[in-house]
Amino acid sequence: MLNPQASIDIIMFWLAIIATMAFAITAVLAIADRGVDIFGVVVLGVITAVGGGTVRDLILDVQPFWVEDLVFVRVAVVSSLLAFVGRAFFTQPQVFALMLYLDGLGAALFGIQGAMKTYELDFGWPLAPLILGVITAIGGGILRDVIAGRKNLLMSTELYAIPVALGCVLLMVGLRFYPDSAVQMLIACTSATFLMRAAAIHWNLKVPACLVTHSKTDGSR
Amino acid sequence: MLNPQASIDIIMFWLAIIATMAFAITAVLAIADRGVDIFGVVVLGVITAVGGGTVRDLILDVQPFWVEDLVFVRVAVVSSLLAFVGRAFFTQPQVFALMLYLDGLGAALFGIQGAMKTYELDFGWPLAPLILGVITAIGGGILRDVIAGRKNLLMSTELYAIPVALGCVLLMVGLRFYPDSAVQMLIACTSATFLMRAAAIHWNLKVPACLVTHSKTDGSR
Amino acid sequence: MLNPQASIDIIMFWLAIIATMAFAITAVLAIADRGVDIFGVVVLGVITAVGGGTVRDLILDVQPFWVEDLVFVRVAVVSSLLAFVGRAFFTQPQVFALMLYLDGLGAALFGIQGAMKTYELDFGWPLAPLILGVITAIGGGILRDVIAGRKNLLMSTELYAIPVALGCVLLMVGLRFYPDSAVQMLIACTSATFLMRAAAIHWNLKVPACLVTHSKTDGSR
Repeated sequence: MLNPQASIDIIMFWLAIIATMAFAITAVLAIADRGVDIFGVVVLGVITAVGGGTVRDLILDVQPFWVEDLVFVRVAVVSSLLAFVGRAFFTQPQVFALMLYLDGLGAALFGIQGAMKTYELDFGWPLAPLILGVITAIGGGILRDVIAGRKNLLMSTELYAIPVALGCVLLMVGLRFYPDSAVQMLIACTSATFLMRAAAIHWNLKVPACLVTHSKTDGSR
Repeated sequence: MLNPQASIDIIMFWLAIIATMAFAITAVLAIADRGVDIFGVVVLGVITAVGGGTVRDLILDVQPFWVEDLVFVRVAVVSSLLAFVGRAFFTQPQVFALMLYLDGLGAALFGIQGAMKTYELDFGWPLAPLILGVITAIGGGILRDVIAGRKNLLMSTELYAIPVALGCVLLMVGLRFYPDSAVQMLIACTSATFLMRAAAIHWNLKVPACLVTHSKTDGSR
Repeated sequence: MLNPQASIDIIMFWLAIIATMAFAITAVLAIADRGVDIFGVVVLGVITAVGGGTVRDLILDVQPFWVEDLVFVRVAVVSSLLAFVGRAFFTQPQVFALMLYLDGLGAALFGIQGAMKTYELDFGWPLAPLILGVITAIGGGILRDVIAGRKNLLMSTELYAIPVALGCVLLMVGLRFYPDSAVQMLIACTSATFLMRAAAIHWNLKVPACLVTHSKTDGSR
């Protein structure tokens, strides 16, 4: 019989695989209207899926997470090809909605894992885990949008990065008081982050207008 | 009584704090017309303030400067929030002009400090100190503009990067002949760079048209 | 008399110098219609010429290749200035065509060299050599286009990255079966990659439409 830690590792691994698939598939759907060839589709799918974690690992000065076990790159390549071939399938309303939720699960999982990795390396506590958690979750998508010339989510009022940031703050607070309960914190904060993102998708919640800059009285250079 | 070196370190530290504030505030004013929410404002303010130094430190393969002492990130976060809340104040002509000069001081300070750090690590003399000095000064602003989808200063005729580059060249020449006067060189080159930038702001100097490419007889692909 | 290895090293060095020139010159011609000043021209020329290799080396966690021997930066600076001054010359049809072929030679050379360097460091075989080979070849051009606000080649149907990717795959297959013939593999794969790119330029081949996403039935978010 498996011990609890091993079970959790296996569950986390499979959740990460599913999240990688969702990141790559939603990436391809997002850029598909731009006339990208199959090679560009795969490159942008892979960048979206592993780009955030790569930037995090460069800042942490550790080997990019995908080098030791190439399964995440492989899954991203295959998922991108699937999305390219089966776009008609993935853009059906219910399937697309499922992908959005899985993408939100991925953002929660990658964000909290990124913060945890930074915490475990004792790197710039408490702000660096928050910063690198957010980079892990949204960095790949921003890289994709910058390369594809699309408006990215930092320039929108989408409630996507804020749940991740709140989840990372929660994780840091939790680890401060219960440093020996890392696994429980990981699960709780990933769940909380995902629920916030799921609520934003379900009720189409946006950042309230009072917290958004307006172009009216603009005097910027 | 403080010894001279300690006094200079304190002055340099407070100048860097002021420059970080100016970078974050001018960043927020620059992107405020795009309808960015408060989270995006803070992220872009922080990227502008510490992004250039982070890219420099990645290339130097040293820990990003903001990790050991998080005060620069904290100042950038608070300044971005201040600029978000107090945009009406900061866009008043005199205040905005002051911010522009402080931003120029920051570019001078960060650029020369970046070149000095590269020099002290004996990294790719003499071109790498020049390259990494310029990256330190303008890298964060370029990252911000790329993410925000704005035209950045490399694509303009603004006299912003050129004073920094000249200051770094001056520093390398100075250190070649007076390797034991690093502190004096630092102060002299930062001052010279700032004066060049201040002159460009005051008299609205641009790069002369004969040194700018023209779109007329264009045969590029 | 020189031994064969030394001769090959010398030939490779000079090919790399020519390729660096071609990358910088075609970069300047590509962005010249945007009204860039001479400083921006040099910065973008240098980024195009050494940017891809720099990103590769950051991911490999080795010193950027241009730091130890600054000749590649120097050549990129001088070539950018030449292209700025002599744009009328370089945009003549025959000269421009020659530059396109030399740029293709550079992409082949840098791509295969990048894959080989990754292979020799035993880094993430077999996918990482392919990924970092492609990044070495096209990373600089993508950085340039992102900074210049241009559509980049990942978003086009240009046959540029695909030959490099195929060449890197060929190299990995070859090294798998003939691990002791690295030099021969390097030459054969660089030649094959260049011939594919040259064919694409000569016959104006593009990625076939069936392998490109269409904006018609688009349901992406």
